Amino acid sequence: MTALLPEGLRDRLPPHAEANASLVATLLGVIAGHGYDRVQPPLVEFEESLAATVGTTKRELLRFVDPVTQRTLALRSDITGQVGRIAATRLAHVPRPLRLSYAGPVLRVKGDQLTPERERLQLGAELIGSDSVAAASEVLGVAVEALAATGLTGISIDLTLPDIVETLASHVLPQARIDRLKALLDMKDAGAMTAEGFASWLPLTAATGPLATALPALRAFDHAGLLASRLDGIEQVAAALGDVRVTLDPTERHGFEYQSWIGFSIFADAIRGEVGRGGSYRVGDGEAAVGFSLYVDGLVDAGLGATTRRRVWLPLGTPVETAAALRADGYATVAALAASDACEDCTHRWTPAGVVEEA
Amino acid sequence: MTALLPEGLRDRLPPHAEANASLVATLLGVIAGHGYDRVQPPLVEFEESLAATVGTTKRELLRFVDPVTQRTLALRSDITGQVGRIAATRLAHVPRPLRLSYAGPVLRVKGDQLTPERERLQLGAELIGSDSVAAASEVLGVAVEALAATGLTGISIDLTLPDIVETLASHVLPQARIDRLKALLDMKDAGAMTAEGFASWLPLTAATGPLATALPALRAFDHAGLLASRLDGIEQVAAALGDVRVTLDPTERHGFEYQSWIGFSIFADAIRGEVGRGGSYRVGDGEAAVGFSLYVDGLVDAGLGATTRRRVWLPLGTPVETAAALRADGYATVAALAASDACEDCTHRWTPAGVVEEA
Repeated sequence: MTALLPEGLRDRLPPHAEANASLVATLLGVIAGHGYDRVQPPLVEFEESLAATVGTTKRELLRFVDPVTQRTLALRSDITGQVGRIAATRLAHVPRPLRLSYAGPVLRVKGDQLTPERERLQLGAELIGSDSVAAASEVLGVAVEALAATGLTGISIDLTLPDIVETLASHVLPQARIDRLKALLDMKDAGAMTAEGFASWLPLTAATGPLATALPALRAFDHAGLLASRLDGIEQVAAALGDVRVTLDPTERHGFEYQSWIGFSIFADAIRGEVGRGGSYRVGDGEAAVGFSLYVDGLVDAGLGATTRRRVWLPLGTPVETAAALRADGYATVAALAASDACEDCTHRWTPAGVVEEA
Repeated sequence: MTALLPEGLRDRLPPHAEANASLVATLLGVIAGHGYDRVQPPLVEFEESLAATVGTTKRELLRFVDPVTQRTLALRSDITGQVGRIAATRLAHVPRPLRLSYAGPVLRVKGDQLTPERERLQLGAELIGSDSVAAASEVLGVAVEALAATGLTGISIDLTLPDIVETLASHVLPQARIDRLKALLDMKDAGAMTAEGFASWLPLTAATGPLATALPALRAFDHAGLLASRLDGIEQVAAALGDVRVTLDPTERHGFEYQSWIGFSIFADAIRGEVGRGGSYRVGDGEAAVGFSLYVDGLVDAGLGATTRRRVWLPLGTPVETAAALRADGYATVAALAASDACEDCTHRWTPAGVVEEA
């Protein structure tokens, strides 16, 4: 059979499509409970607007020339940037902090190894107007609470300090050396670090793992106390997460290029790769913000969001009032249209004597 | 200010984005209550697949060359055709009738006068494997019940008989004359009909309006009884709708080109233009089906789907257990992040003595 759909695109069938919708409702319900209001930016924008978003390049966007305006449009690959645009423009007059949430499909040119899908459902929350410790704590807490409400277990958080090298080295190294140091830290290449005169930075690569050991190691490395406020912040954020497992990978920068003092990845037992990620950043006009994004498809694939509903078969002649009463009782009704009809997946059947369970 | 978004595309802000989501949940909830299972086809497919759908031409699709496969892909402009594809392929083995529902964004090259939007939220239900009177009745009944559940009032249905001219004329007129007659009926051009020898067809144009008068007029015109089963069907479908106002416009074909014996448009007091439409049709492989589609944006614009939620302000130091208890009680909580924070739209405020209403 010829492939019906292009690479990286798929149909969601029952019951997965329903699970998808149910997960979105659960996640956004928890987020709304914390005062986050929903926004819905369009799927398509001017290429320049989408590519102007930090972290997005034109090459990652599916683009086309608009037959109406002859301008190049693109499908969004990320909603965070759109929410930032809305906050900086149409909601510029709304008092801060501004709490916004969103959910919707995003498309990218290519999938990656862990998630070959090119269309994914992104869902998230952004707190705009602050990137304080309190703001980061709230956002991470909301993310964890929302995920836990879906039934996800074994949630853990990996924290990173995206601007740690700049913070420590900005007064002692020229920019070219800082960039080289960051590249070597990304590769975790201890040999090259020593060979190129960065041996004194090696303790940074060791300050990794459970917070209880990594944080003291970082504090010991930070003789001058340049990281003190950041490390105090990390400690407070982690404390507010209660018994969620928190690890630290202070120099992890992959995907956190546009985050400021704190970044985080969320993991869970049943999910390969990240469940979501987020951190502090700046929206277009430099306003501080902190937020998180989740990709719902991974949760569906892990079997979450399953809904079970009693389905009752209504043979021909079932009174319409009876059918309505059964639906009001929470049944899904499946009505015979012809005498030959049947219902394979009905759990119940209506009879003039009442509803009976199917054998 | 330069336009931030391309023509026909817009941001949904609070509270409209929330209303949108709430309407989708209400509508799909009613539809699911009748045993329709959700499917979620992708936003993007091969251009040929989407254009192969009855009622869609390539020119109506936003198209682009896929950088990965070098094939031409397109954004869907309609979900009905995708559901038909799923029914005919991946769900070909599932017993009929098959009941499927869907909701998601669709994009078109150009808006029209009543709805300039190019991105719209389409939602619907398809019953595949039958286009009997019972099937059409169920589908129309579900559409009306779902819309009524959103609070929409003054719902009325305009029924049409898309294949009426073929049915009446196929044995008496050559195809070229049938096509000409249909064109003149579309224009409701009585003068030209008389001039071109179609005077005997004029009563068709008069058999329009409330069912109580239009249906007898049609029966009188149908000497040979060629329409008898269709008209009986229309009468039964209308009777099952109870006190919903039903009108008949038997020769209305605009947008019903791919419908078979019955088509319908749904109108309501508060909405300009159609709320939705549907009818009987054939899926790709010739299987009978009947379904309906709604565009949710019109309902949002009419003010439906508004949700009200109590918002409680939590000053600094509010215990986290208190905050959680308030959310469990249905409040949205808005927590102070700094002593200078305030909440303009909070309806309540927490104090150590309990929750008080804001003045």
